Amino acid sequence: MENGSKQWRFQGSKGLNPASAISLRAVLELVIGNLRKDDPRPIIPLGNGDPSQFPCFRTSTIAEDAIVDALHSAKYNGYAPPLGVPSARRAIADYLNLDLPYKLSPDDIYLASGCVQAIEVALAAIARPSTNILLPRPGFTFYESRAAHNHLQVRHFNLLPDKGWEVDLDAVEALADEKTVAMVIINPGNPCGTVYSYEHLKRVAETARKLGILVIADEVYGHLTFGSTPFAPMAVFGSIVPVLTLGSISKRWIVPGWRLGWLVTSDPKGILRKSGIVDSITDYLNITTNPATFIQGAVPHILENTKDDFFSKIIVTLREAAEVCYNGIKEVPCLSCAKKPEGSMFVMVKLNISLLEDINDDMDFCKKLAKEESVIIVPAGIAFGMKNWIRITFACEISTLEEGLGRIKAFYQRHAKKQ
Amino acid sequence: MENGSKQWRFQGSKGLNPASAISLRAVLELVIGNLRKDDPRPIIPLGNGDPSQFPCFRTSTIAEDAIVDALHSAKYNGYAPPLGVPSARRAIADYLNLDLPYKLSPDDIYLASGCVQAIEVALAAIARPSTNILLPRPGFTFYESRAAHNHLQVRHFNLLPDKGWEVDLDAVEALADEKTVAMVIINPGNPCGTVYSYEHLKRVAETARKLGILVIADEVYGHLTFGSTPFAPMAVFGSIVPVLTLGSISKRWIVPGWRLGWLVTSDPKGILRKSGIVDSITDYLNITTNPATFIQGAVPHILENTKDDFFSKIIVTLREAAEVCYNGIKEVPCLSCAKKPEGSMFVMVKLNISLLEDINDDMDFCKKLAKEESVIIVPAGIAFGMKNWIRITFACEISTLEEGLGRIKAFYQRHAKKQ
Ligand SMILES: Cc1ncc(COP(=O)(O)O)c(C=O)c1O
Ligand SMILES: Cc1ncc(COP(=O)(O)O)c(C=O)c1O
Repeated sequence: MENGSKQWRFQGSKGLNPASAISLRAVLELVIGNLRKDDPRPIIPLGNGDPSQFPCFRTSTIAEDAIVDALHSAKYNGYAPPLGVPSARRAIADYLNLDLPYKLSPDDIYLASGCVQAIEVALAAIARPSTNILLPRPGFTFYESRAAHNHLQVRHFNLLPDKGWEVDLDAVEALADEKTVAMVIINPGNPCGTVYSYEHLKRVAETARKLGILVIADEVYGHLTFGSTPFAPMAVFGSIVPVLTLGSISKRWIVPGWRLGWLVTSDPKGILRKSGIVDSITDYLNITTNPATFIQGAVPHILENTKDDFFSKIIVTLREAAEVCYNGIKEVPCLSCAKKPEGSMFVMVKLNISLLEDINDDMDFCKKLAKEESVIIVPAGIAFGMKNWIRITFACEISTLEEGLGRIKAFYQRHAKKQ
Repeated sequence: MENGSKQWRFQGSKGLNPASAISLRAVLELVIGNLRKDDPRPIIPLGNGDPSQFPCFRTSTIAEDAIVDALHSAKYNGYAPPLGVPSARRAIADYLNLDLPYKLSPDDIYLASGCVQAIEVALAAIARPSTNILLPRPGFTFYESRAAHNHLQVRHFNLLPDKGWEVDLDAVEALADEKTVAMVIINPGNPCGTVYSYEHLKRVAETARKLGILVIADEVYGHLTFGSTPFAPMAVFGSIVPVLTLGSISKRWIVPGWRLGWLVTSDPKGILRKSGIVDSITDYLNITTNPATFIQGAVPHILENTKDDFFSKIIVTLREAAEVCYNGIKEVPCLSCAKKPEGSMFVMVKLNISLLEDINDDMDFCKKLAKEESVIIVPAGIAFGMKNWIRITFACEISTLEEGLGRIKAFYQRHAKKQ
């Protein structure tokens, strides 16, 4: 038998999709790689959107108990139906119907392994040769990656920092052509921390209708709002334009590790059914995995019985954190943010590089900050296509956040240009 | 605003991939649709491979407790690393190393949401334009579906019923060309209930090596063997040919609803790394969902502490069920099976249509059986490309199985051709 010189015919598929985006995690790893082992202070993680490690963000015992009960019932050890456990589909419909002017049926609800898989299913269902999709910049790069995987072309419209990160609807109209099939809207916003008004969402719906495209509404941060703008689900405008609503329990219940989400056809006129999108969703769900059955089995109990106390405690904590974050940023001359965040867990902050002595750009800022201060934040250049912006997550213990902002200030002072 | 006549630009992606296979579930639904509501007897489900509903196949309390402990620790509510929780990767390596002549490292182990997602990742990682893959017939149609999704061409080699369903290696050699990248082997077998000998697996490895292709070894039924042939993992031959081993806790622990599986690079020579397959696996895992973190967190405890008692009780039950099934089939003249099943939960049975009066084919047999006797079995024609074969699952309570076989016999007697 030959030795090491054997020729093999297989080869990795990596790099076949040129449009594939770098994942947020990969960006964070570039930053984290600069942490110094010899800093005795704790690391301050203001990078990713997962506050589950912080005691003040511990999930509700109601939710944990619901999982244990479902598991012990031994009714949910087997395979789930590919579209989801019926009681969970019904409970999610009821939950969403609280905010809608029409009624979703359980048949409109498809269970997914987190909102991430809901995105995967949605994009697989609409991808046809040479079609394209409109994505927000800044946005959530998982969309770019899955679009590339599905050979779906991507076009970006800007969110406008000076208009509270509203969608640039003129740009949307200019970008769309006869091969455009959908636009994505993330509300409450990641990475911007915005909550869109009812009126703005209505204009989005009307623009999409005019263009003949559907709206994919990523509401994974649904109800995590703490400013003056109330959360309105895009599905409210389902009669104007068909909406695929994506969501999960990851953020509102602070359990992203549970991998329980949904994809919903918010479409009272039945257009998604007629156009074959529903069939494609069903088909795709038949050839992919799904959330653990006992977690699905716990969904009715989780959605129906979680106490308002739990939700309001989270909101109060987030509101205070947003405030602390906003005020802390104001104390650092090279940082600015147009508007106090009103939703989700993030704020986009503009970096004035010209005030800094030896920092080249946002990536350089984040790497040196990690190295010198053990604070992790996201450089928005490669992460979101927003050169010289950064994203800060404020969902952590207030004391941790204060400590982090203090260190950022000290970092600034050390690196500020001498007058 | 216009009314219902509005033109929309989106359309479902369904039907774009002509090679896509019908799912086993869809086949079963065609059969189940014939059940009569007015049959007072219980339905006998000998169709799918999920015995978790039967008390004699209830999973171990050790496994259930491990999940509860991981959940209550609150250490696993957050996102998991995309390749898997490190302690779970280590535990799976240790578990698989018990049967190997070399040592897998935790870095060789990738967590997946069931073996189904391991298949998804494996096929995504090897798919390149105009490459093809060799699949067994009969096999597990999920491979066909995911191959179609990845634009990977499929070629089928036969398993030989008269040789204990061994792989037709001459056919494999004849089918492969310079665009062939991999072959799939399912051992213990679904749908055939076979366990391949060490020698046969070695010949498979040598053939693959000669062709320069990798072996995808689906061992989701690993260790579920109860005949004279012991289970040998394909990875034993990892020095001959690089192997991607796919597995899960679904079958051995009877918890398919828990969605916990793995993909393993069983490749002591590091060829998969050199050829970019490892990078592609990592890339794909960065753009997909993963198993619930607390279930991953429970894996070390489940793999290390499940008692031999539990496994041997399952094996004893399956052995008895296989025996009952084999003997029951012998009593039905129109059915025959070459060899008593030695592994998994299934047996392939040949149907002699010429002995039946008014039955056209396997599908007709299964539909009428469902209608008249409320017994569900799989017609292997459309399910596996094996016209006039059926697949029977024997993993259920013995009394249920006996009742089912009795009804099949009665069905035969009613439909037998008069001499
Ligand atoms: C906008 C957006 N969509 C989807 C997701 C994924 O959510 P899930 O944890 O439910 O998969 C995230 C996670 O951060 C997100 O920010
Ligand atoms: C051959 C084969 N591979 C993979 C699977 C999927 O296993 P899992 O439940 O771990 O996703 C099955 C399930 O029946 C199977 O028969």
